[in-house]
Amino acid sequence: MTRHSGTKRTVLIVGSMAFDDLELPTAKVRNVVGGSATYSALSAALFAPVRVVAVVGDDFPTADLERLRARGVDTKGITRAAGKTFRWAGRYTKNLASRTTLDTQLNVFADFRPELPESYRDSPFVLLGNIHPELQLEVLAQVQRPEFVAADTMNFWISGERSALGEVLKRVDTLVINDEELRELAAEHNIRRAARAVRALGPKRLVVKRGEAGAMLFDEHGIFFAPAYPLEDEIDPTGAGDTFAGALLGYLASEPAIDAGTLRRALLLASTVASFCVEDIGTARLIGLDRQTIAERLESLRNLVHAS
Amino acid sequence: MTRHSGTKRTVLIVGSMAFDDLELPTAKVRNVVGGSATYSALSAALFAPVRVVAVVGDDFPTADLERLRARGVDTKGITRAAGKTFRWAGRYTKNLASRTTLDTQLNVFADFRPELPESYRDSPFVLLGNIHPELQLEVLAQVQRPEFVAADTMNFWISGERSALGEVLKRVDTLVINDEELRELAAEHNIRRAARAVRALGPKRLVVKRGEAGAMLFDEHGIFFAPAYPLEDEIDPTGAGDTFAGALLGYLASEPAIDAGTLRRALLLASTVASFCVEDIGTARLIGLDRQTIAERLESLRNLVHAS
Repeated sequence: MTRHSGTKRTVLIVGSMAFDDLELPTAKVRNVVGGSATYSALSAALFAPVRVVAVVGDDFPTADLERLRARGVDTKGITRAAGKTFRWAGRYTKNLASRTTLDTQLNVFADFRPELPESYRDSPFVLLGNIHPELQLEVLAQVQRPEFVAADTMNFWISGERSALGEVLKRVDTLVINDEELRELAAEHNIRRAARAVRALGPKRLVVKRGEAGAMLFDEHGIFFAPAYPLEDEIDPTGAGDTFAGALLGYLASEPAIDAGTLRRALLLASTVASFCVEDIGTARLIGLDRQTIAERLESLRNLVHAS
Repeated sequence: MTRHSGTKRTVLIVGSMAFDDLELPTAKVRNVVGGSATYSALSAALFAPVRVVAVVGDDFPTADLERLRARGVDTKGITRAAGKTFRWAGRYTKNLASRTTLDTQLNVFADFRPELPESYRDSPFVLLGNIHPELQLEVLAQVQRPEFVAADTMNFWISGERSALGEVLKRVDTLVINDEELRELAAEHNIRRAARAVRALGPKRLVVKRGEAGAMLFDEHGIFFAPAYPLEDEIDPTGAGDTFAGALLGYLASEPAIDAGTLRRALLLASTVASFCVEDIGTARLIGLDRQTIAERLESLRNLVHAS
C-alpha cells in the first residue's frame, strides 16, 4: 500500500479490551465495555479503516464485537480466549479530576501475546496502546515497514521496564503521553525540558496530553498547543486519552501527507473527539458520533483560540 | 478625558506594596520589593500611563519609588506611613506548582485607607487589586464615572466578606480571578458553569487565570482561551497574576475601543507579559522589559495555537 494508491490507509491498534466498573459522581455503573483498544478503535474508525489486535474472554458479548465491525473496525485480530475478560474498577473524585483504581483483574489479558493475522501485516499506521513494552515490540516485529508508528500512554512501564521501554521509544515516530508520565519518564518537571529529554530517547515527535489543560505537540517545527474543549457536562473521562490517540492516528491516516499543518490539525481534531468521550458513560457518546457534529465542535475549538 | 481626545487613557491601580521573602527552588531571597500594585503597575505602565494608590512604611526605599516613576508610574497616591511596609514570606515547592505562606506581617497595610489624590479622580481605567472589598468600594466612591473597572484576585475575601464582595461584583465590568477562586466563589467545579454563575453576580466579563493552563475570557461573545507561554526557565511565579492583570488593563487603556477583538488580544498580551515575570526573581525581568521583546514572544504565543 502506497500513499497515493487511492487505497485508504489503515490504522492497526493494539491494546486492551475490558469491562469497567465505574463509580462516577453521577452514576455507579458496572460491566461497561472499555479498554484502550476499544476507545482508540472507535475513535480512529471515524476517519480511517481500523484493525484491532486484542484479547477478550468467553464472557465478552458478540454484540459488542459486532458494534465495532458496524463502525468499520476489522476485528479479525481480536482473540477470544477461554476465561474472563480483563476487568478494571475505579472511583472518580466528585470533580472528575482524579481517580482511584479499586480493582484490576487481568484475566485473559495476563497471557496476551499479540498475534497479527496475515492480512494485518501491511498496516501502514500502528498505534501501540498501553500494554507491556515487550508486547509492543512483538507487534512491531510482525508489521512490515509501517509508515507511522505511535505509542500511547505507558504509565505502568516507566518505573519497571526501562530497558524494553527504551527499545520501544527508539522505534516509534510519535509518543503520545500524558504530562505526568512525561515528567516521570524525563525526571524533569519543566515540560519543555522534559519533552526535549524524551525526544532524545527516540521519538521524533511527542504529543503531551494534559486533560483540561489541552494537548501539546513537540516536534522539529517547534511547539503547538491544542486547547481542551470546555465542556459543560462532564460525565465520564474514562478512555478520553485513548480516544484522543485514536482520533490522532485515524486523522493522520486519512490525510495524503503528514506535514506540520496536518499534525496541528490532527491535535485539534483529537482534542475535539476526546471531549465527546467525556460527555457520556463509556463509549456511549463515541458510538453515536457523526462527522458533522465533530466538525461543528472543531470549529468552536478553533474559534476558542482565534484572535485577529 | 474622552476616548478620542488624543490624550492617553490612564490606569488607576490600587493594591499592596510589600517586601517579600521568597524560598524558591533556585534561591532564597529576602526583602524583594513586591505586592500586587507593584507588579500590576510595572506591567500596565508598559502600555499606558499608570497611577498607583498604595501604602508603604518608612523602611521603603525611595529608589524603588523612583524606579516606578522612571517607568511612567505616577506615585502621588502612594502614602508613606510611619511603621514598617507590609511583609510576606513564602516557600515554593520544587516544581513551583504551589506555595506555602510562611509569614504575613500587615504592618502599615493594616490601617490602609485608600485616599485618591484629586488628580486621580478622573481615571478612566481602574484596577482594584487584592485588598478588602470595603476598601475597593471606597476607591470606586472616589473615582468619577470610570469607563472600565476591573477587580483582580479576591481569595481572602470569598469566604468571609461575601456581602461587601457582592457589592464590588455589581460594580465591576471585568473580574479577573484564578480558577480556584472561581470555583470557590461559584461553589461549582465545572469552569463554564462556574463562569456563568459568577457573571450572574454582576461582572459582564470574567477573565480566569489558570497558571500553566493559560487564561480564559468569558463574555457575551462566548469563550476565548489564551495559552500560557511554555517557559524553559521558571524562576519565580510571585506576582505573575498581578502582572497579567496589569498588562490586561494597560493594553485595553491603550486601545481606542474595547471590542471582542481587543479583549482577545489583551488576554494574549497579558499572558505574554506574565510569562516574563516568572523568568526572574521579583520584578527583575519586568523592569528590564521592552516592547520589542514582548512583541516577539507574543508572536510565538500566537504561533503556538496557529493551525491552518
